[in-house]
Amino acid sequence: MAILKGKSGFVEWLPEQQVVEDTFVRTIRESYELRGFTHLFLRSIEPVDVLLRKEGGDTNKEIYGVRRIADAGESASMGLHFDLTIPFARYVKDYAGHLTFPFKRYQIQRSWRGERPQKGRYREFIQADADVVTRGKLPAAFDVEMPQMLVETMDALPVPPVTLHVNNVKVLGGFCAGLGVEDVPGTLRIVDKLDKVGAEGVRDILTKSLSAEQVDKLLALAAIRTPDASFVAEVEALGVSSPELDQGIAELVAVMEGIRLDGRGTVVANLGIARGLDYYTGTVFEGLMEGFETVGTVCSGGRYDRLASEQLPGIGISIGVTRLLGILLDGDGLRGSRSTPTCVLVALNDDAHRPVAAEVARALRRRGIASEVFPEPQPYGKQIKYALAKGIPYVWFAEVDEPGQHKVKDLASRDETPVDLATWSPDEDRLRPHVVSAD
Amino acid sequence: MAILKGKSGFVEWLPEQQVVEDTFVRTIRESYELRGFTHLFLRSIEPVDVLLRKEGGDTNKEIYGVRRIADAGESASMGLHFDLTIPFARYVKDYAGHLTFPFKRYQIQRSWRGERPQKGRYREFIQADADVVTRGKLPAAFDVEMPQMLVETMDALPVPPVTLHVNNVKVLGGFCAGLGVEDVPGTLRIVDKLDKVGAEGVRDILTKSLSAEQVDKLLALAAIRTPDASFVAEVEALGVSSPELDQGIAELVAVMEGIRLDGRGTVVANLGIARGLDYYTGTVFEGLMEGFETVGTVCSGGRYDRLASEQLPGIGISIGVTRLLGILLDGDGLRGSRSTPTCVLVALNDDAHRPVAAEVARALRRRGIASEVFPEPQPYGKQIKYALAKGIPYVWFAEVDEPGQHKVKDLASRDETPVDLATWSPDEDRLRPHVVSAD
Repeated sequence: MAILKGKSGFVEWLPEQQVVEDTFVRTIRESYELRGFTHLFLRSIEPVDVLLRKEGGDTNKEIYGVRRIADAGESASMGLHFDLTIPFARYVKDYAGHLTFPFKRYQIQRSWRGERPQKGRYREFIQADADVVTRGKLPAAFDVEMPQMLVETMDALPVPPVTLHVNNVKVLGGFCAGLGVEDVPGTLRIVDKLDKVGAEGVRDILTKSLSAEQVDKLLALAAIRTPDASFVAEVEALGVSSPELDQGIAELVAVMEGIRLDGRGTVVANLGIARGLDYYTGTVFEGLMEGFETVGTVCSGGRYDRLASEQLPGIGISIGVTRLLGILLDGDGLRGSRSTPTCVLVALNDDAHRPVAAEVARALRRRGIASEVFPEPQPYGKQIKYALAKGIPYVWFAEVDEPGQHKVKDLASRDETPVDLATWSPDEDRLRPHVVSAD
Repeated sequence: MAILKGKSGFVEWLPEQQVVEDTFVRTIRESYELRGFTHLFLRSIEPVDVLLRKEGGDTNKEIYGVRRIADAGESASMGLHFDLTIPFARYVKDYAGHLTFPFKRYQIQRSWRGERPQKGRYREFIQADADVVTRGKLPAAFDVEMPQMLVETMDALPVPPVTLHVNNVKVLGGFCAGLGVEDVPGTLRIVDKLDKVGAEGVRDILTKSLSAEQVDKLLALAAIRTPDASFVAEVEALGVSSPELDQGIAELVAVMEGIRLDGRGTVVANLGIARGLDYYTGTVFEGLMEGFETVGTVCSGGRYDRLASEQLPGIGISIGVTRLLGILLDGDGLRGSRSTPTCVLVALNDDAHRPVAAEVARALRRRGIASEVFPEPQPYGKQIKYALAKGIPYVWFAEVDEPGQHKVKDLASRDETPVDLATWSPDEDRLRPHVVSAD
């Protein structure tokens, strides 16, 4: 099943695909709430100058300005948010007096970016963010809790196993300092290209500003990957040290030893992760999905000292919901088991039986079983065809010979059996639409 | 508790208010799904020319144009949708080949209108729409089903009882035709002002183009309100007839006799309802909330022959979620019973007990009980203060003298009792935040 056509970069789903998105959103929501994160659903627009402050550089051109058509000619003073962090930071600043810290919130909302549409990139997309922020010092326990929550949440989704690659920005930064590298941020921006250009590509660029030994050691550090805290020995073997490096290693060890895994997901210390160093200040992590590693990160997060421009230390996670769906709904991927919530179609033989049929539907709904009455008397064959087309699993016949003795047809087995309205229940796995593989 | 400050017309909620919005959205969603309506969540933007086609007239200036900041200077070709009907119509047209008719869908989404902010009017707002559309002829059964679903859905919400005022546009239109009124649409647009200017105000305007007898009869018709089909006799007493009037009366009788009420909501035939006659073609209805009648309509719907510009007959309902919340959260209105999903705070005595505390939280979550571990060892008084500030109902102590014998403090009763992790459960009504009255 293909992703829908339509306005480039603005994806929409067919009903049986929407079931998948809804399942993802509900699952993430339940996972975040079980861990005490409160829901916020913030406005879609922010002042353009607030949006520009973070985005900076070239990318600001991707912001969508919003302006009433009546005001054409004026430049847009408001824009659609391009992430969920800026609205959250503004909210915390505006309403700090009403909030209790540490403040834990989640947001599952759309954002907008006017970037060039390409595979995995959308102009309108849903992200599922959770952050904990506080005033003063943010306890180190959250450096374990947040990646743990991310791994467990991804585990709860109908997706392949996710490996979370964890690092600490102080490790790379402190290692550079210990190596005597002068332009640490510039150097790390180059290391960040490892995924794109490979080790040899990075070596070529670094060689212009660093010695061969510095480059060798830096690339050796960035290549370290261990499933536990054993990276410590590998770092020590490189013979580089600095206070910042020691601090980073201690923090990364605490994370690697603190996370407890009992699902499908795994965690690796990956000392080559160098994401967004101008923003993150400690623990950082990004998740790759088994079999889809080349697609890149599907979830990520990290610790920061400032929430956007505010002095609020925090740590956050983000799941790229639309990105995941774009990958997993493509081709013969996931879909819903049917295109309607309806579990039972109550057939209608003639207008005289309409009140009986309506009462059957009402009684089923009272017991949480979604049902609808066929809207007009038609040959049963036509009504069954409608049910089959929508994937409705059962058809209820309320007008058989014996008054009060109804029958239900199971459209999978084609069995038709007498039933009692007060006690009949559908198969558990057919009560609601759920996610299945298309093949 | 006041509605939040902030950008005029763009409302946001505090965490304990968000609980109310979430409850409304979840309740509406469950109600629509139980009746077989499938979920769609469509893109936020449409081409401006598509948006203008319906909106027309003066109001098009309220559309928000959207344009990348990089493209400043060009006029916006895309805009934010101002209702959920236009995107739905476009979707049905684009993907008709993938849909089974009658197609039943619901959308609970934001729309945007750049109108002057005022009480009850927002520039960004959530509506909860459900429509059934088909090709060919739409069965009359839906004229009963849809207002019935609206009444039952409003009944399920924590709001005052709603009265649905039902009419049929053929009644007013056919009555005008029977009276010999020449400009029927123009006349009905004036009748539509009854709520705003009253009967005498309408009379003053109508007198300019109609005879005194025509005005008297029209106002007499528009004043008819009956709790059942008895309006028929009152219309007949006015001595006006036309084929269209007969048709409208027959349809309205079928609706009034078909709707079954067993909740708090009520239905009245109100022959003065004259909403959107350029769009609706049969049954129309609007809901007023007890005690808030002067605020105006909080939900509405009706039958149409064309879905936006498409030849798709249908009937729809819409609940103004943000409008309802604006009314009900104002002042000492509704709020959530607490500001966090957390049901149990697991206290932390010292770092040595962290694994035990984490295991308690994990075990509770496995049983669906939202819980969090206090992030660092602190005096119990401080941890309890945090729980009280967030409204968390229970604090769990995992480090008492007897190993394995934990205690739970109920922060409402202040009772502290020994508990068994495998069997302890919170009070049912304190498992999750729910909606309460603030007073």
